[in-house]
Amino acid sequence: MSALDTAGSVTIVGLGPGSEAMITPEVSAALAQASDLIGYIPYVARVAPREGLRLHASDNRAELDRAHHALKLAAEGAKVVVVSSGDPGVFAMASAVFEALEGAPEFLGLDITVLPGITAMLAAAARVGAPLGHDFCAINLSDNLKPWDLIERRLRLAAEADFAMALYNPRSLRRPQQFARALEVLRDGCGSERLITFARAVTKPDEKIETVPLSEARAEMADMSTVVLVGNSATRRVGSYVYTPRSAR
Amino acid sequence: MSALDTAGSVTIVGLGPGSEAMITPEVSAALAQASDLIGYIPYVARVAPREGLRLHASDNRAELDRAHHALKLAAEGAKVVVVSSGDPGVFAMASAVFEALEGAPEFLGLDITVLPGITAMLAAAARVGAPLGHDFCAINLSDNLKPWDLIERRLRLAAEADFAMALYNPRSLRRPQQFARALEVLRDGCGSERLITFARAVTKPDEKIETVPLSEARAEMADMSTVVLVGNSATRRVGSYVYTPRSAR
Repeated sequence: MSALDTAGSVTIVGLGPGSEAMITPEVSAALAQASDLIGYIPYVARVAPREGLRLHASDNRAELDRAHHALKLAAEGAKVVVVSSGDPGVFAMASAVFEALEGAPEFLGLDITVLPGITAMLAAAARVGAPLGHDFCAINLSDNLKPWDLIERRLRLAAEADFAMALYNPRSLRRPQQFARALEVLRDGCGSERLITFARAVTKPDEKIETVPLSEARAEMADMSTVVLVGNSATRRVGSYVYTPRSAR
Repeated sequence: MSALDTAGSVTIVGLGPGSEAMITPEVSAALAQASDLIGYIPYVARVAPREGLRLHASDNRAELDRAHHALKLAAEGAKVVVVSSGDPGVFAMASAVFEALEGAPEFLGLDITVLPGITAMLAAAARVGAPLGHDFCAINLSDNLKPWDLIERRLRLAAEADFAMALYNPRSLRRPQQFARALEVLRDGCGSERLITFARAVTKPDEKIETVPLSEARAEMADMSTVVLVGNSATRRVGSYVYTPRSAR
């Protein structure tokens, strides 16, 4: 019997930003039917343990190993669910699984499904109003997998295009200076009055969200649990909300 | 008693792309508690009628009127739910409600909440693999609310930044030539081998998804129910899937 004759499967799911009320029913159903759960430690910890569910929690930065492990277990017949925070297709595990698949063509016939989730930028945007209500972009500020020069270049082009922006993984202990540099690039490209929102731990008990003009933004306002939203040139406040109009000139 | 002494509220919710299994529990709860449902006709039709729920379905392009109506009903004490397809903050009703609020400051004290949903691009991306797995942008190709020149400019800058792209509202009967022009701009900026995915009616019974190189893309492959995903320079196929690697040079 070849690996692909089994009834195993890999389902890559998004748990949303934190609140259980944002987990879609299809993701809950996949979790209920799983035999094996794979993911980064804090994401696996978000799923209630139950009899018959094997947990495989691994450290961060082990994405490819984790993805390969998922494919291998599925080939042995397991119903594997790979968990990501937010949406699995946005700076998360879905790409890692397909990268692992590319390197291990013996798994090509496996049943692989991606189930979307509420990604951090859209949960954060909803909390403050509608700052991404016009054309926007999403940029991962981590230079683990791309050179910093490319990140700066994209920030500059995004400012030139007048995109609203969502910035993921803005800051880590390992690279404290880079986000300060990103803020400089943004001030240069967008001006000091542009609104920027720091949304930390969205929908979690320790959620903290604040919006300031770029002139008042400091690197210390972000950490790795923060998604940062930058408005476009028309983004403004109305009452306690921040929104970007649907129209542009 | 002023309008703001009442217990009315406006909750702007995202119904996701079509499948009920992608509607979040918090959105379902809001729908169950609503007294009044406001939205574009086909979106209101997606909610099961029940006793005590007043339906206010309106035509497309009436977003601001609809938003003002929602605020007015809430000021009178109604528990209003405004429904959007996908996510309400992505080319949908959330911005329209805040625009209406800006024009009617008497409603500023109202309780307004936005509940995110699965937006079309992320549902489409999940269906084909992980084409948005690296930095990406979302551009609305409709020129109802912005000049076409700005759209072309953003497409060019997005290509220069090597963003993957999600294109909403690619084509309508009223402007059949524009999407053909957008494809020309993309071929010019991204080359003819770049992968493009046409995802129509995602998660609905008539879902149709196809991926081709830009050289084979024709304007007729999109309609107003289609979200279009354009890969970045590294986007590729693995088996029957399309994905964008997490890394870039």
